[in-house]
This record gives sequence, structure tokens and C-alpha cells, in this order.
Amino acid sequence: MIKTPQGFRLAAANADFRSKKLERNDLALVVSDVPATAAGVFTTNLFKAAPVLVSQAHLEAAGADGVRGILINSGQANACTGEQGMGNCHLSLSMVSAALKEKGLDVEPEDLLPASTGVIGAQMDMDKWATAVPSLMDSLGKTDVEGLVRAMMTTDAFPKMAGRELQLKGGTVLLAGVAKGAGMICPNMATMISLVLTDAAVDADAWTAMFRRAVDATFNRVSVDGDTSTNDSLYGLANGASGVRVEADELPLLEKVLTEVLGELAYLLVKDGEGATKVMHIHVTGAASDEDAEKVARTIGHSQLVKTAMFGRDPNWGRIVAAAGRAGVDFDPMALRVTLCGVELFRDGRPTDLDFDALLEEPLDKVDLPLDIVMGDGPGESRLLASDLSHAYVTLNSDYRS
Amino acid sequence: MIKTPQGFRLAAANADFRSKKLERNDLALVVSDVPATAAGVFTTNLFKAAPVLVSQAHLEAAGADGVRGILINSGQANACTGEQGMGNCHLSLSMVSAALKEKGLDVEPEDLLPASTGVIGAQMDMDKWATAVPSLMDSLGKTDVEGLVRAMMTTDAFPKMAGRELQLKGGTVLLAGVAKGAGMICPNMATMISLVLTDAAVDADAWTAMFRRAVDATFNRVSVDGDTSTNDSLYGLANGASGVRVEADELPLLEKVLTEVLGELAYLLVKDGEGATKVMHIHVTGAASDEDAEKVARTIGHSQLVKTAMFGRDPNWGRIVAAAGRAGVDFDPMALRVTLCGVELFRDGRPTDLDFDALLEEPLDKVDLPLDIVMGDGPGESRLLASDLSHAYVTLNSDYRS
Repeated sequence: MIKTPQGFRLAAANADFRSKKLERNDLALVVSDVPATAAGVFTTNLFKAAPVLVSQAHLEAAGADGVRGILINSGQANACTGEQGMGNCHLSLSMVSAALKEKGLDVEPEDLLPASTGVIGAQMDMDKWATAVPSLMDSLGKTDVEGLVRAMMTTDAFPKMAGRELQLKGGTVLLAGVAKGAGMICPNMATMISLVLTDAAVDADAWTAMFRRAVDATFNRVSVDGDTSTNDSLYGLANGASGVRVEADELPLLEKVLTEVLGELAYLLVKDGEGATKVMHIHVTGAASDEDAEKVARTIGHSQLVKTAMFGRDPNWGRIVAAAGRAGVDFDPMALRVTLCGVELFRDGRPTDLDFDALLEEPLDKVDLPLDIVMGDGPGESRLLASDLSHAYVTLNSDYRS
Repeated sequence: MIKTPQGFRLAAANADFRSKKLERNDLALVVSDVPATAAGVFTTNLFKAAPVLVSQAHLEAAGADGVRGILINSGQANACTGEQGMGNCHLSLSMVSAALKEKGLDVEPEDLLPASTGVIGAQMDMDKWATAVPSLMDSLGKTDVEGLVRAMMTTDAFPKMAGRELQLKGGTVLLAGVAKGAGMICPNMATMISLVLTDAAVDADAWTAMFRRAVDATFNRVSVDGDTSTNDSLYGLANGASGVRVEADELPLLEKVLTEVLGELAYLLVKDGEGATKVMHIHVTGAASDEDAEKVARTIGHSQLVKTAMFGRDPNWGRIVAAAGRAGVDFDPMALRVTLCGVELFRDGRPTDLDFDALLEEPLDKVDLPLDIVMGDGPGESRLLASDLSHAYVTLNSDYRS
């Protein structure tokens, strides 16, 4: 069980936002008893959903003063919904703010960060919001971390959570992270939302900077289908309710643990990628630069041919080598080495003469497949987690008219 | 029937290069009676197969003197085969040169351009070459264009050919084009080879330049799976055997017809892409530049989510819009317009209120799907032909251990 960090109250309710009626919650709320230092990382897509635009504005306005909570709904993405969508987003925050005030919690709409996932293009049904907010309030403080993440799920196969207890000089702090799935399921679904909550007290600039670095090292190092959605959002809230201030010399430790939490969530996202049966752990080393290494890792991880080969448990060095060769990076082809699950497949411009099929039959049946690429003797390095490409992926994403 | 241009003799034979024994030819030869002006465009992959490296060297050495022919085998790609592979490539050319000399045709090994397609990494079986060359010689001049292309096929579902008769001031010239498939089938297959032969007499510089432009407008505007192989090669030979010299003012006409021939072949490659059931005709206009338009066209055409939607006959504007938005191009999201099969799906930042499902049910059952993207009012434009992503693609590329 993942413990809820101190000073956060969680809530969940069923607003029936989804087109198919499900006995599952689809509305979630995080409220901090005091303003929390907040960091946010958002989709780089030019088409940003209304909640992304509103969150960015609220974060900027809050600055070091912090925010009071996060409001999440699944089933309706509120993306490509124009002015009406912006209005509905603000309206949902006002409804929740008013209800919180009735409970004696002085939270303004602009103290909240909204996040939505679900069908693109449809307007949110505000009547459903109005009906659901009271039961959301009833559950406030009675919901645990798993209850929170279950209300965010759309087509996720399992809830994605990670937590840590961290001993600092001033005492113990808690971190709890949740995420919902990396899929854009038919028709027009979007997409990834993740939160990390901690009761540590951290300097705002330090928290924002470490959150960005941790996201870059984890969530920006995964590939399911290479598509970025209109709604991808990551939030990190640190409310200080533990009373433990993170000293300057303890910041690297907090960053390490934060990166672990986000890394676990990112791994679970790939593992639960649409139709995924494998997770390739791609590690590129020996490149001229980290940028070169990253290009090679991404070209391999995004290659449909490499992905289908992994699904087919095929030690197809040819596709891996061909992907590296077209990554747009200059390197010596004779220096390239490819090792899959510890078995060296390719070296000196040729396949090695090991018996790949015999050596790899068992390792390729596993879910986690380490793929090590050495490009030369340069200092550049990069990692990427990538799913395979299966029949189930095609079924999930094409099953429209049947 | 596609006519063989004058002064070219075609040949085909079965060397049994393929691992599975097939009653089908896998060795092909084109010989020109006189030196032919030659143009070549090759894979940009860092891993270039031996025949690609040898062809590039022979073309450079020949310069304006021209070449005498093209030698193609399927079943063995001779890629990632090191020094031995280079030696075998030269040896195959020597065998054919010696056999041609016995027939009284004074063709040196360096007058020939080699091309191979098939399994990567395996060395060519030179005994099979030695056995097959006599029957190749027996068929010289007795093989038609379809016989030539059939000997190049690997997993192609149908032979890909296109031809034209062109009236010029000096008389009639013929063009004949052939291509083999755009798939990299398991395990480790590679890939695309295309030839265009003409009996027109053309200035070498003009021919080379127009060939490059025609390839750029056609073969460089298709996407099956985004993977470029180690062996992709396109050749254009103009031997002048018609006795018709192309006048300077007729060059644009020849280029137009050459582009049509290559365009037909490129279309057939996408239509016969692995598991393809649809051909998206993506046309991006109104971009700030052609480069911007191309980036958007490629991001849409390569998107797994768009490809699976087309396979599922799903007018999924959300995935198309999301792909445009992550193409790395700056444009006004509110200006984007998306029209599929003549039905406008998206405008002013929102889906239009047409009944997509009713309007598009029939059009989306067809193979050819026009997809028009307007990005704004700029002058930039780009076209791309892209296949869909089907269950058959996954089956073809993952069916290794079964």
C-alpha cells in the first residue's frame, strides 16, 4: 500500500463521464491543507487541451506561493473544444472551489490545477459535473492513493503507483506517485497524466528544477507508439506538511528518490502500453554525444520493424542495425555492437557466429528485454524504455467499425 | 504489356538463392548494346550493402561514359557481410562479364551495376551463382519486362511495372520502369530496387539531374513503415538506341514522363506495402515552407495511430490533428483544416458538425484515401503516399517463432 503524504486529502467519485456506463470512478481530487510548492510539465503538442492551458496559467500566476490541489477527470479530454471548453474548465474549478468553501476549505478556483483525459473534441457535460461534485466532497479524505489512481484510469489494465519513505535530518517524508496510461485508444482518446505528492518542505526553485530533470530522465525516455497527446501532464506538489525541511545538501537525495518514483511509473506505463507484451530496455553508449545516443535509441525504439520483431521473439539484429544506420547520426558502422539479453548479436560490421536462436529462446520469452547498443568509444549515452508492437495494439486502435 | 526499350536485352534465371525452394526466378540481368547514360540514387542508411557500395563506385568511375548493364539478385541481400561480401559482389560481376564475353558482348565487370535484395548478414552462395549464370545467358534477349521484374520479387504480391511511349521531334522513345517491394520481411530482409530504362539519347548531366528530381518527387514521398533498408537502390539507364536525341526544349517533357513512371511505381510499392489495405494520399498546403509541409505530412503518414485508424476505417480527426501538432513545426492551431475523402473533419480548432460516420462509411471502404491538410495561408506544400497499419503487417513482421 502506498501511504498518502501528510496534509493531502484525496477524493474520488463517479460522474459517468464515459460513454459506456461503468461502475468505476472517473473524477478525482487532491487537496492540500496548505499551499503546496508546485511543478508542472506538459505536452509539447501545439494542440493543448483546455485543462493544460488553464494549468499552465494557474501555475505561472501562483509562482512560489504554491497551489492547493489538482482536479482530474477521465472520459472527457476537453481538447479541441475551443472557447466553450475553456469556459467549462473554469466552471468545473469554480464548482469544486465553492463546494470546498462550504466545507470550510478556502480554496479559490485559481488555486486548483485541472487535468482531463478521454475523448477529444466533445464538450464536457457540466450537468454531470454538478451532480458528481457533492459525492466527490463526501469522499474527501476518505480516499487512498489506489482510490485516486483508479478514478484516473481509462483503458489502463492496472493502477500505476509508486511510493517512498525518505529519512532526512529533520525526520521522515513521504512521496506518493500515480499515473494513468500511455495509450490513445479509439476513438480519439487522450492520454497521460501523472502526479507526485510529497509532504517534504522544499525550496520552490529547487523543486521545480529537480522535477523537470526527473521527468526528463524518466517519462521523456519511454516510447509506446511515438504519438504525443494533447493532454499529457505531470504534476509535482510538495506541501511541507511533514514539517521536515529538505536541507540544501539533502536535495540530491530527494531528487534521486523522486526520479525513482517517476521511473517506476514510467516503466509501468510502457508495460501497460496498448497491446504491449515486452519492454525493451534500450541503452546506447559510446556515442559522440548524448544527443546522438538519444537519436539512435529513439529510432530503434520507434521502429515498427524492431517492435514487431520483439513481439515475435525474433533476435533480428538486421532491423536493429538498419534502424541505427538511419537515425541521422554519423558513426562508424564497423564500430557498432548490438547485444540483446546479454547475447552479442553484431560486431565488426557482421553478425557474430553465436547460435542466437538457441541462446535467446528463453530470454526472449520474458517481458523485460535489455538491448545494449555500443556505437563507438565516445562519451555519449542514452536510455529508452520501449514497448513492442502486437496484434492487440492494432486491434485496440483500429476496432472502430465492426 | 510494357515494351522493352530498344537496345536493351533482358535476362532471368532461377539460382535458388532463397532459403525456401521456389519455382521462381531470382536472378535478373539488363544489358545495353551500347554504353548507357546512368543515374543512381541509393539508401542513405550508414549500413550500405556491398552491391550499393560497388554500384556507387562503378557509377562514379563511369561518369559520362555510361554503363552497360545491371545485375540483380533476390534472396540474398549481401548486406553486413564485410570484406567477403565485397569480394563476392565483384566475383558475381566477373562471372557475368566472362559469360557475356563468350557471347561476343564486350562488357567488363566495372561496366555493370549490381543490386541485391533478400536476407541480411548471410554470405552469397557463389556455387549457386556459377550454376545459374549459363541459364541466365540462355535467356538473354528472350525475357520481357514482366519476366525481369518477376525475377526481382521477394514477398511482392504482384509485379510492379510502368511504361510510356513518348513522341519527340526526332521520333518515338520508350520508357520502361520496374520495382520490387517496399517491405523488410522476417527474418532480416531488404528491400527496394527500381530500374527505369529508356532508349532516348539524353545529355548525361540533364538525365542525372532529372532522375534525382523525379525520385525526390515520387519514391521519396512514400511511407510504408518509415524504415529505410541497407539496400534501397534506384537506377536510370538511357542508351540512345532509338536514335532519338532529346532536344534541350524537350527535357521538361521527358522529365514529366519519367516522373509519371516513377510515380506509378512508387504508388504500387505503397499499395503492395506489407499488409497494406489502404493508401493515404496526404496533401499538405498552406504551410510557411515546403519543409514545414513535409514534416507535417511525414508525421501524419508515419503515425501508428493514424495508420491503425485508417485500417479500421475510422475518421479519427483527433489522431490526425495530434500528429500535426507534434510535427515540430510552428503554426496556428486555429488555422488547421483537415479534410478526409472530401469531407471536412476539423476547422477553427474544433471538429466540424458534419455526420462523419454516415458521410465517410462508403469512401473509407475504398483503397485510396485522399487526406488534405491546410495549415494556414502560406506557400508551402508537400505530398506523401502512406500505407495503413494492419494485423497482416504485424503477422508478416513478427511471425518468427511459431
